[in-house]
Amino acid sequence: MIEDKNQSRTSLSNLGEFGLIEHLTSNFSISNPSTVLGIGDDAAVLDFKGESVVLTTDFLVEGVHFDLSYMPLKHLGYKAVVVNLSDVYAMNATATQITVSIAVSNRFTLEALEALYDGIRAAATVYGVDVVGGDTTSSVSGLTISVTAVGRASANDLVQRNGAKPNDLLVVTGDIGAAYLGLQVLEREKEVFKVNPNNQPDLDPYSYLVERQLKPEARKDIVALLRDLTVRPTSMIDISDGLSSEIIHLCKQSQVGCDLYEEKIPLDPQVISTCEEFNLDSTTIALSGGEDYELLMTISQNDFPKIKANPNLTVIGHMTESKSGMHLVTRAAEKIPLTAQGWNSLKNQ
Amino acid sequence: MIEDKNQSRTSLSNLGEFGLIEHLTSNFSISNPSTVLGIGDDAAVLDFKGESVVLTTDFLVEGVHFDLSYMPLKHLGYKAVVVNLSDVYAMNATATQITVSIAVSNRFTLEALEALYDGIRAAATVYGVDVVGGDTTSSVSGLTISVTAVGRASANDLVQRNGAKPNDLLVVTGDIGAAYLGLQVLEREKEVFKVNPNNQPDLDPYSYLVERQLKPEARKDIVALLRDLTVRPTSMIDISDGLSSEIIHLCKQSQVGCDLYEEKIPLDPQVISTCEEFNLDSTTIALSGGEDYELLMTISQNDFPKIKANPNLTVIGHMTESKSGMHLVTRAAEKIPLTAQGWNSLKNQ
Repeated sequence: MIEDKNQSRTSLSNLGEFGLIEHLTSNFSISNPSTVLGIGDDAAVLDFKGESVVLTTDFLVEGVHFDLSYMPLKHLGYKAVVVNLSDVYAMNATATQITVSIAVSNRFTLEALEALYDGIRAAATVYGVDVVGGDTTSSVSGLTISVTAVGRASANDLVQRNGAKPNDLLVVTGDIGAAYLGLQVLEREKEVFKVNPNNQPDLDPYSYLVERQLKPEARKDIVALLRDLTVRPTSMIDISDGLSSEIIHLCKQSQVGCDLYEEKIPLDPQVISTCEEFNLDSTTIALSGGEDYELLMTISQNDFPKIKANPNLTVIGHMTESKSGMHLVTRAAEKIPLTAQGWNSLKNQ
Repeated sequence: MIEDKNQSRTSLSNLGEFGLIEHLTSNFSISNPSTVLGIGDDAAVLDFKGESVVLTTDFLVEGVHFDLSYMPLKHLGYKAVVVNLSDVYAMNATATQITVSIAVSNRFTLEALEALYDGIRAAATVYGVDVVGGDTTSSVSGLTISVTAVGRASANDLVQRNGAKPNDLLVVTGDIGAAYLGLQVLEREKEVFKVNPNNQPDLDPYSYLVERQLKPEARKDIVALLRDLTVRPTSMIDISDGLSSEIIHLCKQSQVGCDLYEEKIPLDPQVISTCEEFNLDSTTIALSGGEDYELLMTISQNDFPKIKANPNLTVIGHMTESKSGMHLVTRAAEKIPLTAQGWNSLKNQ
């Protein structure tokens, strides 16, 4: 009988992405006085002479985070920047600088990389950030992009994930679920193309969904809006992994519970019609789809008059005591426990 | 006849790594007042309330920058941090924080990543930096590590690459060439192992070389030494791509020439003996080997008494007018133009 010599080895897919980084860095200590906040929020916070510097970084890997068969390189460059800036805005900070590193195989031409950098430059211009560094190297296969963003805020303005209180309102920006459905539409067209390369896809009915997938925008405007409204959220996070998993993050880090109302979740009409066409439940998509890059925040009830009727902000629930748990309240007024089924790159392989 | 439709495409290997990033970012503009220095030095410089923040990032790709058949994961984690910190020290700054992102295929177990992070934590402890963030994701194949380092300095202490003046002394720390030879020794043992897996390599005669390759250190001590000696270099760079190519960087960015004296280049006895054994020219190895992570700087002649006889600092030449060009002065007193033959990852594939 052959013995399994690897019996003590742990497969990475047993942990999620969040569990992995938490596990690997759990015994890392902080020793510099300028380190205000380390791992565990949208971005790290550093203090330099009383001003807060936020720092966040993201990896995008070909075949895991993007598929170049329907993702134009210019859009990819744009998106690589946007997903990072979203984390800066989720700290209620202003993004100021980014570094962009790429590893590419020789399959890519200079012209391809120029298109990628055209997208990076376009995003840097739109969001007013400077590209101040990076590294360019070869890879054995595929394209990997690493973006690091720096932002700044006064210490009073910064919003972390851990400040939500019971009775705070749960608020989301924009609408949810479109990016995931955009990916489903693109995947379907890719399959059609494989069968019949001459088929011209009609993406018009899905234009919003596809744009949300291929050219997402980060909510820089919300940081400005909150300042104008003089609202400082008690906690905030960006929705990259799906509404459900991000609500759970806020609840756990703030040690509160939550009631989320199904009927309040903002959905675009294209999300509703496409869910019907694909025979998908729109609430499930909103809860678990991911990649929306909207902001999820909690605000004090006292601030409700300031945000009421603002088209950018939708109240979708409220926070409760921790012991009440985290629930979705359905249209039928049933309470279902929220579970994290967000997009998990480590389980996709 | 089949037309070559790709005739206008440019292969990446036609440009070097440095040429590529320069080309791709040549029309990127800087708009934030806090951006003091963008792409083109060891690190970017940001200004936050009068304090300079330096920011630098590096990619390490399996099969390009490291080979796990002789690079233990703990050493790899250590080295990934060290090569980044070296860029911070090359700005004459103090490293304070790092972020570490990894993309891994499912070939890696949790225990393997724990070994990697043990090395990262060891380096963070030795160099006194805090790990404040990162991203962990899956890859289609292999391991990719991206490290970003943050440092700080007063604006007066910062040293860029562009301040060298004619008659300044060219100074290098430590000794050169060992890391490259360490790699040659390890590659040879790998070939021996393929033929006879039971062969036990005797690496004792190469212990220094192998350590310089597998566990390099960054010269944090030099930043402290220069402060103690009250010497502020006029320019500085870290030697990651070989002495020759880094001298050329300093000369071009400072618009000066250089005479480098072959007989002055500091070599460890193991470098000399191993070069003889491998039938390699030690000067060529020192000029083009790379990965030494020593610091190369220029200092004013007035500062010579302060550094004289310091075992960490070796004067290897002096800067000249730009029109004199960049030369190696051989032991036979011949002047040979310096050429950049540094390690170029884009040409390795």
